[in-house]
Amino acid sequence: MLTIKDIAKLANVSVSTVSRVLNERPDVSEESRRRVRAVIEAHHYVPNNTARDLVRINSDAVGLIVRGVQNPFFTDIIAAIERALYAAGYTMVVRQIGFSDDEVAIGAVMQREKRLRGIIFLGGRSNYTPEEVAQLSVPFVLCSYTNAFGTLDKAAYSSVSIDDERAARDAVDELIRSGHRRIAALVAEKDDGAISELRYRGYCRALQEHAIALDDALVISTGDSFTIKDAYRAMAEHLARNDDFTALFAIADEMAIGAMRALREHGRDIPADCSVIAIDGIAVSEYIHPMLTTLCQPGEELGARSAELLLANIEGCGAHAQLTLPTRLRRGASIQAI
Amino acid sequence: MLTIKDIAKLANVSVSTVSRVLNERPDVSEESRRRVRAVIEAHHYVPNNTARDLVRINSDAVGLIVRGVQNPFFTDIIAAIERALYAAGYTMVVRQIGFSDDEVAIGAVMQREKRLRGIIFLGGRSNYTPEEVAQLSVPFVLCSYTNAFGTLDKAAYSSVSIDDERAARDAVDELIRSGHRRIAALVAEKDDGAISELRYRGYCRALQEHAIALDDALVISTGDSFTIKDAYRAMAEHLARNDDFTALFAIADEMAIGAMRALREHGRDIPADCSVIAIDGIAVSEYIHPMLTTLCQPGEELGARSAELLLANIEGCGAHAQLTLPTRLRRGASIQAI
Repeated sequence: MLTIKDIAKLANVSVSTVSRVLNERPDVSEESRRRVRAVIEAHHYVPNNTARDLVRINSDAVGLIVRGVQNPFFTDIIAAIERALYAAGYTMVVRQIGFSDDEVAIGAVMQREKRLRGIIFLGGRSNYTPEEVAQLSVPFVLCSYTNAFGTLDKAAYSSVSIDDERAARDAVDELIRSGHRRIAALVAEKDDGAISELRYRGYCRALQEHAIALDDALVISTGDSFTIKDAYRAMAEHLARNDDFTALFAIADEMAIGAMRALREHGRDIPADCSVIAIDGIAVSEYIHPMLTTLCQPGEELGARSAELLLANIEGCGAHAQLTLPTRLRRGASIQAI
Repeated sequence: MLTIKDIAKLANVSVSTVSRVLNERPDVSEESRRRVRAVIEAHHYVPNNTARDLVRINSDAVGLIVRGVQNPFFTDIIAAIERALYAAGYTMVVRQIGFSDDEVAIGAVMQREKRLRGIIFLGGRSNYTPEEVAQLSVPFVLCSYTNAFGTLDKAAYSSVSIDDERAARDAVDELIRSGHRRIAALVAEKDDGAISELRYRGYCRALQEHAIALDDALVISTGDSFTIKDAYRAMAEHLARNDDFTALFAIADEMAIGAMRALREHGRDIPADCSVIAIDGIAVSEYIHPMLTTLCQPGEELGARSAELLLANIEGCGAHAQLTLPTRLRRGASIQAI
């Protein structure tokens, strides 16, 4: 079979000209392009060795499927993933999906259409089954969540996340340590089979461990949204009916920030009339007034470790692992002891 | 030359099996795979007609080169761009670069390596020359900025942005209407040949139109950063030396939020002791306390129109255009009349 050097000789052009023609570069004269193509067609030239290698062209693509695009917590993670993939010679192809879309089904289509080498799911359900992920024929990593409610074999998938239930328990503990017992929770859905459910469980566990009865009237749900706007709306509606609590645990910083505006508009000062704690540690939460007390996730590390795990799997030199990274309590000024 | 149907016949398998082998799908028996490959190699089969078509595989990629990744203002824009590209059957390949990286040089490399069909630059310098953009052999669109300081022919490039100078003038006008005359400006660099310089010009113009002398001591620069953290630091350092102003114009919402923390820590209430206005209209700015008064950019529309312009150019049915979209003054509670 011909090599690129043979073609150059036969077409009487340089090797780099052949390469430019194959790569459809514009900086080639029409005459050279014509000669190279004539040789290629006459000899049925196939770059590399077989058609099989050829279809590998451009297969440096890794898919990033982001569920919940508006989430500012994802900004640092995405930046870290892209840096790691780029450094390793891969390309990041991004697809954003809505809260109700099925990330696995979308990944299964995308892996074929985009010839992906691997997939990172950023945000998603925590209840996959082996049958479900069997649709995926390339390595994948769950980033910022794990298969807590699912039935995947631990030897068969990779994830990088915090311990969401524990982080929520730690957050509510901090409120209880400050004397609070009437503690409201702002969640997305209590039973979403994902982050919201895990963090709601942590809230329940903290109350239970301190012998505080769970009061359903203090659990505020946005439906299935984590946005600042929906958190604001849900909190405003709740306050119109029930404001009998001294503290609020919000499952995400943005939701806390939305809720804080609703609390202020309801006439409650933070922290004097209501203490607030959350989880995430997004940049802006350190600058608002009052500074939010929150359990910070290591965003950059979540992204970097996810990319590492995926690349090791793509290159066939890594076993599956479920990494749990620690959170850090950052005390702001949104809690007051009572 | 063989068609995929010929191969199926020769290998005694179905057409879809040939397709699966060519696409390296796992759901093919080893025996079928072996037979298909044998036919392919024996006949030097080249999918489609020529190697030239083959290297076009995956060329549905559009590059998004993002300068200033941490910018939360970009979130809505990126979401809108991805939605529009996806709807049109294209794939978004993302590359994030630093403030000091040269986006055009990076685009020139990326267009070849990733076989891009087009490029959207999100954030960048506003001073390109024709020689510079000659490196780009695919259509491109400047998103959220335009070639205000450059020498590009208007018939030769596309952009979608607001009128930055005018938005800044409108913002400072709003402060002046409220009685302020000692107005500080928080910028990145006064002469960055980009957004910061344009908005600084708008500040100067508003002062001039109201016969207020420009006082260099009231111009605060972060260096070349738009981050909340650097804005906070620059403001804190400035306040230690000079706090003789009654209002602040920050060129971006995040920078305003960083500066507001520095002002509070310096003992100044907002708006009682210092009024604040900015430009952008990021989601969180509507929920912080006090709600930020700002000139809102139409983020989603900036993204959607950029994608539209690019796709029209890729598909050869669009002329170049420089679109200027309007901003909207959102009055919050961060300005007090004096």
